[in-house]
Amino acid sequence: MKGNVIVGQSGGPTAVINSSLAGVYRTAIDRGAKKVYGMRYGIQGLLDEQYLDLSKHIKNDLDVEILKRTPSAFLGTCRYKLPDIHENQEIYVRLFEILEKLNIECFIYIGGNDSMDTIKKLSDYAILTGKKQKFVGVPKTIDNDLALTDHTPGFGSAAKYIATSTKEVIRDGLGFSYKKKQVTIIEIMGRNAGWLTGASALSRGEDCDGPDLIYLPEIAFDIEKFMARVRKLLEKKDVVVVAVSEGIRTADGKYVSELSATIDYVDAFGHKQLTGTASYLANLVSQDIGCKARSVEFSTLQRSAAHLASRVDVNEAFMVGGAAVKAADEGDTGKMVVIDRVSDDPYQSATGIYDVHKIANDEKLVPREWITKDGTYVTEEFIDYVWPLIQGDYPCVMVGGIPRHLYMSTGAPRGRRGNKEERERETGDYLQ
Amino acid sequence: MKGNVIVGQSGGPTAVINSSLAGVYRTAIDRGAKKVYGMRYGIQGLLDEQYLDLSKHIKNDLDVEILKRTPSAFLGTCRYKLPDIHENQEIYVRLFEILEKLNIECFIYIGGNDSMDTIKKLSDYAILTGKKQKFVGVPKTIDNDLALTDHTPGFGSAAKYIATSTKEVIRDGLGFSYKKKQVTIIEIMGRNAGWLTGASALSRGEDCDGPDLIYLPEIAFDIEKFMARVRKLLEKKDVVVVAVSEGIRTADGKYVSELSATIDYVDAFGHKQLTGTASYLANLVSQDIGCKARSVEFSTLQRSAAHLASRVDVNEAFMVGGAAVKAADEGDTGKMVVIDRVSDDPYQSATGIYDVHKIANDEKLVPREWITKDGTYVTEEFIDYVWPLIQGDYPCVMVGGIPRHLYMSTGAPRGRRGNKEERERETGDYLQ
Repeated sequence: MKGNVIVGQSGGPTAVINSSLAGVYRTAIDRGAKKVYGMRYGIQGLLDEQYLDLSKHIKNDLDVEILKRTPSAFLGTCRYKLPDIHENQEIYVRLFEILEKLNIECFIYIGGNDSMDTIKKLSDYAILTGKKQKFVGVPKTIDNDLALTDHTPGFGSAAKYIATSTKEVIRDGLGFSYKKKQVTIIEIMGRNAGWLTGASALSRGEDCDGPDLIYLPEIAFDIEKFMARVRKLLEKKDVVVVAVSEGIRTADGKYVSELSATIDYVDAFGHKQLTGTASYLANLVSQDIGCKARSVEFSTLQRSAAHLASRVDVNEAFMVGGAAVKAADEGDTGKMVVIDRVSDDPYQSATGIYDVHKIANDEKLVPREWITKDGTYVTEEFIDYVWPLIQGDYPCVMVGGIPRHLYMSTGAPRGRRGNKEERERETGDYLQ
Repeated sequence: MKGNVIVGQSGGPTAVINSSLAGVYRTAIDRGAKKVYGMRYGIQGLLDEQYLDLSKHIKNDLDVEILKRTPSAFLGTCRYKLPDIHENQEIYVRLFEILEKLNIECFIYIGGNDSMDTIKKLSDYAILTGKKQKFVGVPKTIDNDLALTDHTPGFGSAAKYIATSTKEVIRDGLGFSYKKKQVTIIEIMGRNAGWLTGASALSRGEDCDGPDLIYLPEIAFDIEKFMARVRKLLEKKDVVVVAVSEGIRTADGKYVSELSATIDYVDAFGHKQLTGTASYLANLVSQDIGCKARSVEFSTLQRSAAHLASRVDVNEAFMVGGAAVKAADEGDTGKMVVIDRVSDDPYQSATGIYDVHKIANDEKLVPREWITKDGTYVTEEFIDYVWPLIQGDYPCVMVGGIPRHLYMSTGAPRGRRGNKEERERETGDYLQ
């Protein structure tokens, strides 16, 4: 490689998106890149010329390892969709000026569907205008809803967190069950795709029954049938645990979370906020059945719990990052690296590469045949598919009892002591 | 020891209450107990003659190790307060008949304030009526609100989970912050005592700023001052993170969670349900300031996340269990084992023993001088106190990618495959 590499992160963070960043960095250096730049906050930041020299932040091999264990997007992400080329050519001109100024040869973008759209548009523009830069995408999303790749980096770690936490929540409930019926509703991320919610089934094993019911957004949710199921289960057992996707909808397309009056606002990205599905259902159970009912939301932890990352996932994320640089360096453009499952047992995977034009915003949902006929659980095929992806640990480097992360130095002194703000607080002068 | 030992667990579960159970079992066996019985669901179950022979469930040294890594109460717990002796003598007669039938010499009860009340009443009754059994309590609670002991087993692991998860949530937010202000409110357990909420400050270090504001239940919560603080912080930074206790109350004693109309029901134990503090405040911030605001509840995971247990905590929990058996065997009764901090740096602890009559339902709150003057953070003294308790890991035994727990065999086949219910689901016959 004669020129430089630039890499960005986009969309929702995951526990291993920085492992992909580390893979990009490592392979770029190994292949002779002069400089590896990082876009701050993805393409949106780059348009404002917000970028940095990664070697200033990843100073040695230990930093690479810490980066692989750091959740969320080290470079920061954005949710920014490039306009179509014919709509606003000026923005492309500006971007390519920046790329040329930085002598960029390979442009790597780590993200979900929207990011692959960015790769497509930029590579199309480069080909149309005779630019030399190569554009390759690296898949990333906890939701596992990208087409063509067997699964997405980020999904395995989220699934491992969900399976483990579901098991711990089930056990927590069992401790309390004497002469008391109790229902726990666990709410799991996934607006349209039920991969994460289905992963709660992996808590099942010799030492745990797993959830009693699992409701994915792929199947219309029937509140009356749900209540009847819970009632029936409570006749047989004292502790009932239900996993629901935040995105479950009734047959008329209404989100269950919308049925509750409390949560009716739209977030900064224009998405309707989907919280409250589990608490709505728990209230319903408590009122109608009269037993104790509680809700648990795994919330943002399911995408940022690097302390429980899957080794398979961390390694694959690193691998796809490196493969993207290799592909771009060898002349590929307008492509996304994918993960191919080479073998199920023993599990083996390898990278492949696909034309991003073929990927184009398809959401990969859980196939109907991987959901039980009655729509309240996932099948063994689903479990067999997810199982290899949660295997193995990637232990954190613990400092002071908690995981160490790689951070961007701001120059300001930080740490347990000597913080000026803190001293001001203690003297009562703070912010007065 | 010539006779037998019986042990029970009471109150809310923790990540290490089973490590205390393992400690009781191991020391009882080592000191020659013929049988070690476990009460199912504490004293309430015992009154119904619900007990088991622990050696049937802890079959070997590996099981002891797995038990130490199993969260929640292996034996099940209750929240049952014994009546005063003069109120209902009959219940005591029945209990002691059971103890005599089982040839119990030592009665060990692992729990919080209510459990120590049980130890007090039973030992008083035994002394008054000339019974030979010895009664010793083992402290347990994530809330750390027991008097006389330096800290309680269970607190350190909860604090480690809270510090780690707070750090991961902060980092998650930072990834998103480009040109967007964002406030995250984290809700942490602790109805009256702020030990757990304060532990969120341990996320602070060289690589993390920690929460910006911490509100404990010990200090009256002023909503207007809180909003002014958040506004002020948003002028300086894009991502503001606030940790609040579920139990924060306004100056007139009203729970903040009660200010929201949605959560106004009482749980099966007669406690008012305190959920919604963080979501109430996040809604307020979102409406009044207009920025993105989200709430995260650590919920039951903070007491059951054995996958992130503190090694100090697991070992101390085991140690106090063993010390209780030793004390009872040596003739102590009406006592609780406590943890004494022998040295801060290096941290060392040892067990001591206290008369339960002195403990009597005092709640140990965070001292005022360990909270900053303005009431929005904890001091360095607080952090120095908690810091040693979250040190060291106690790695789970991972089976199939998730932690293995010790479980009570019901005789029914369990596991990923061959589950009859599951087959019925797949054929659609399930529950029809």
